[in-house]
Amino acid sequence: MSKFSYVDLKFKPDLKKHIIATYYLETNGEDDIKTSASKVAAESSIGTWTDVKTLSKATFERLHAIVFEISDHYPSYFRVSKTIENKMKKDKNKAVIKIAYPLDLFEFGNIPQLLSSVGGNVFSMKCIKNLRLLDLEFPKKYINSFQGPYHGISGIRKKLNIKNRPLIGSIVKPKVGMTPKQYGKIAYDVWSNGIDIIKDDENLTSLSFNKFEDRVREVMKVKKRVEKETGEKKMYVFNVTAPFDLMLKRAKFVKKHGGKCVMIDVVSVGMDNVQLLRKQDLKLVIHGHRAGHSAFTRNDEHGMTMYVLAKLARLAGIDQFHTGTVVGKMDGDEDDVIRIDEFLKEDWAGFDILEENWSSIKPTMPIASGGLHPGLTSKLIEILGNNVIINYGGGLHGHPDGSASGAKACRQAIDASLKNISLSEYAKTHKELQKALKKWGK
Amino acid sequence: MSKFSYVDLKFKPDLKKHIIATYYLETNGEDDIKTSASKVAAESSIGTWTDVKTLSKATFERLHAIVFEISDHYPSYFRVSKTIENKMKKDKNKAVIKIAYPLDLFEFGNIPQLLSSVGGNVFSMKCIKNLRLLDLEFPKKYINSFQGPYHGISGIRKKLNIKNRPLIGSIVKPKVGMTPKQYGKIAYDVWSNGIDIIKDDENLTSLSFNKFEDRVREVMKVKKRVEKETGEKKMYVFNVTAPFDLMLKRAKFVKKHGGKCVMIDVVSVGMDNVQLLRKQDLKLVIHGHRAGHSAFTRNDEHGMTMYVLAKLARLAGIDQFHTGTVVGKMDGDEDDVIRIDEFLKEDWAGFDILEENWSSIKPTMPIASGGLHPGLTSKLIEILGNNVIINYGGGLHGHPDGSASGAKACRQAIDASLKNISLSEYAKTHKELQKALKKWGK
Repeated sequence: MSKFSYVDLKFKPDLKKHIIATYYLETNGEDDIKTSASKVAAESSIGTWTDVKTLSKATFERLHAIVFEISDHYPSYFRVSKTIENKMKKDKNKAVIKIAYPLDLFEFGNIPQLLSSVGGNVFSMKCIKNLRLLDLEFPKKYINSFQGPYHGISGIRKKLNIKNRPLIGSIVKPKVGMTPKQYGKIAYDVWSNGIDIIKDDENLTSLSFNKFEDRVREVMKVKKRVEKETGEKKMYVFNVTAPFDLMLKRAKFVKKHGGKCVMIDVVSVGMDNVQLLRKQDLKLVIHGHRAGHSAFTRNDEHGMTMYVLAKLARLAGIDQFHTGTVVGKMDGDEDDVIRIDEFLKEDWAGFDILEENWSSIKPTMPIASGGLHPGLTSKLIEILGNNVIINYGGGLHGHPDGSASGAKACRQAIDASLKNISLSEYAKTHKELQKALKKWGK
Repeated sequence: MSKFSYVDLKFKPDLKKHIIATYYLETNGEDDIKTSASKVAAESSIGTWTDVKTLSKATFERLHAIVFEISDHYPSYFRVSKTIENKMKKDKNKAVIKIAYPLDLFEFGNIPQLLSSVGGNVFSMKCIKNLRLLDLEFPKKYINSFQGPYHGISGIRKKLNIKNRPLIGSIVKPKVGMTPKQYGKIAYDVWSNGIDIIKDDENLTSLSFNKFEDRVREVMKVKKRVEKETGEKKMYVFNVTAPFDLMLKRAKFVKKHGGKCVMIDVVSVGMDNVQLLRKQDLKLVIHGHRAGHSAFTRNDEHGMTMYVLAKLARLAGIDQFHTGTVVGKMDGDEDDVIRIDEFLKEDWAGFDILEENWSSIKPTMPIASGGLHPGLTSKLIEILGNNVIINYGGGLHGHPDGSASGAKACRQAIDASLKNISLSEYAKTHKELQKALKKWGK
């Protein structure tokens, strides 16, 4: 047992001076929960598994992390599965703990350093069975050390000249396999029929049969033409996911050819590269895909929540971010998605003990994407509201009459929802929607 | 049901033309294992949840991923927990599957793109309950598109002028809290008493009371002095974990001041930044810390194995990599650690169906680090051999007589092990080791 204790349940944290981490913790059954919590606080701040001669009392007092709460329930703003909470109430090896970290432990503006501290070795410790980082709450001073989104929601809406309705997006499908020319053709069909945004899929970067530069040239040509024909503003999201030198080169190429938006797979390249791309001040909208997040977010008792990932994405500078569809092909609890989307759009977060002030960081627009089709539209808008990008992939290009009709059907579904007309009713006079509902249901 | 099938159990993969992924898969119980496997292959290559009009037969044939094996056991080179294998044999919803991906689906030299494909959306699919990427096998052509380590094992040994024995490292403890002057003092004590390598811990980058540049200046001064006094070569591992602009600036600063080695937390910053730092050709040894990996590697049935992470680290250019201690404070199965260490040191991998040829990529030196003390040394060398870096942190600085005696004790434990003398026997004539064994056991 260490001569230093990292637990003080009477301690009152101060969101001016501490970063607060909330974890779900399950011990390995050997330590009690308090000992295990203390070890987590030690390993993620200044301690290790044994007392060292080199740690002075003064340094300990100044820098050690403090477990100030051990409870059997989630923070009030986490409307979490009752199953887990009930299990926790019956099992003394499980708890939600809150740890306050002195701000001096962190390098400002350095997300990797933050993760290596509060999301690092702690997941590996033998003394725990499970550990899940539920939330990170930041002092304003720390938040202010990041740039956040350049455009944010209002900037994106301005670029597209759309005030209140959801933005309508489409992923080109198949994910990969087509040439730039074929992309251009599909983009024309989709944009011309009521869709605002078209995007590359997560695994299309620059491939032998579809070179990045060729795709940009082709698609931008089509965009110009469609904007002229429709009088509407359009956006294409080019996937620049790659080591940073290549990412920057490609982003500059997009900029040079009049593009407005690039996509980054934030898990594959890390938030640090989002920070760095944002820092270049290319004034591009940065679209954040989250492919791979479920490797560490999906297990309810281990890893990290999408909520934490969303906070980091907004700090780093993501303008629009994939947060879940509730109703689509991907896993994602309704309450979780709602909380994440709310956070991204607001200038505050938290509220359990202390309120975080995010007013210096622009809001990020949530994206619902993955397995969506017209029949899910009204339900989705009912759940997520209007301030969202709704992406249709297979549910557009899989339309029995092809992509152009698919685009019409998606737009009709949005229009019906905004007019509060049921999709079945609207489908009576809109044949594209009718065929989509027939194929995929509603 | 899709009109295209992604399963062909008669298909023979060709390691010249395909990247092969091995997954453990558990369905959600609604689909049978074959359907679920087909969906995973679709989502990670060119398919989605519904057939799309835009996917031609020809494109499908050329680019679709193929599930060519569904079995109830792990690859023969995975000496995996019998518990999981036995569960799998009894449960038709669980299997190990192998998928072949045509090489054209990938951008050469782009690790994030690889991850977004085979380690991306697939973890999120509602149709699976669990999915774990066990292995990725690469064609030589793909492997050759990466630089790999600049120095490798022989390069590191040459720099330190040590031929056969394990390299002995120490992490400065406490992790953070001391000033550069204090670091210098500790480095002197440790280096002077038989330790080869000293390193920053994972959460120390540049902090208000210990600026990166000040630490480099101070430590390099001490290093010069110790090398002169002892006639031995020493190495300091500076943690440059940060967004890439800062990382590069700091790495160059290390280089300029005569440093030989920098550390990157590879999970926090991503393998792409390892690739990019390697590409700068600063000729620095790159030390890979893995803080945070357990968020996605620890669950035996979901996420990704450390084996895959180790393969990516070696491709990207890591010269020395944390792989596990077996006997220390961190989680990590003995067989797993052995397999990873073997791979890092060899010029081949795999052997189940096809042999991967890694001869163009230098070997990476494994590091055992986390909770080690002198008493564990003989056991560790017995398990891992001599071609390894053994890091002592708390188990050195926690010595009853302080860091200098701790360093002596660690070195004595190594010497005893190499001479095949039992630690207790050796301790009779070596008082530092004696005190260490008394404190922590053996």
